[in-house]
Amino acid sequence: MSGSKPSSEVEEGLVFQPRFDASGLVTCVATDAKTGDVLMVAHMNEEALRRTVETGDAWYYSRSRKALWRKGESSGQIQRVIEMRTDCDQDAVWIKVEQQGAACHTGRRSCFYRAVTKGDGDKIGLSFVDADRLFDPADVYGAKA
Amino acid sequence: MSGSKPSSEVEEGLVFQPRFDASGLVTCVATDAKTGDVLMVAHMNEEALRRTVETGDAWYYSRSRKALWRKGESSGQIQRVIEMRTDCDQDAVWIKVEQQGAACHTGRRSCFYRAVTKGDGDKIGLSFVDADRLFDPADVYGAKA
Repeated sequence: MSGSKPSSEVEEGLVFQPRFDASGLVTCVATDAKTGDVLMVAHMNEEALRRTVETGDAWYYSRSRKALWRKGESSGQIQRVIEMRTDCDQDAVWIKVEQQGAACHTGRRSCFYRAVTKGDGDKIGLSFVDADRLFDPADVYGAKA
Repeated sequence: MSGSKPSSEVEEGLVFQPRFDASGLVTCVATDAKTGDVLMVAHMNEEALRRTVETGDAWYYSRSRKALWRKGESSGQIQRVIEMRTDCDQDAVWIKVEQQGAACHTGRRSCFYRAVTKGDGDKIGLSFVDADRLFDPADVYGAKA
């Protein structure tokens, strides 16, 4: 990460030594391999990283469900990993993926379907952009309260 | 984030209500507005978010230095924000930027200058990719131990 303390081994070495946070996680950014759009930001633990590299499918660790999950295991909206990279201080990975359908559980292609915009005075608002749903979450995940 | 508990207000509303973590931060992914490449992953606190929206320059919060910083204030390698988006559960933002020079403090265009690759057996290694330096960090930041 820019601005962090330099370490030649971590920054310039060829050994993958992910720097997990206190919860044992690194941040993962998934982008669409074709368009470059950011599809989602999620987390991987050591096992998710290993399975992703081994299988070529994206695996994550859900902080809310406290569980390993293969992206698309419920929805079918899997991610095939074209390339994985790590950053200078190895606390984040970037995967370029072929996304099957929608990455977001709301049914949108990307989780980033709202722009943050400057309004009048101090107001900051949101506006929908690229927000069409590719599926109805109720159909895919079942009805939720 | 995919898989999180749905909340119509947070996910479908037009009010920007960033969900800061215990340290008061959201994750920020900066991508090159032209190429879609991920340049860096960093963090913003409330003040960094506000200044970024107000000024159109990227501001971050450094966890290591515990300080607000305007990207490029030391190096001159500023980021002009073309668009900011937030994700479904509003704990991450994505900014598309015009990057002046290099985003990474190592002098590379992107912090993600190494690919994570599967080697023999269980081995996972790194290989340099797009790793040319645009500047010498010693020239820009001064010599470091």
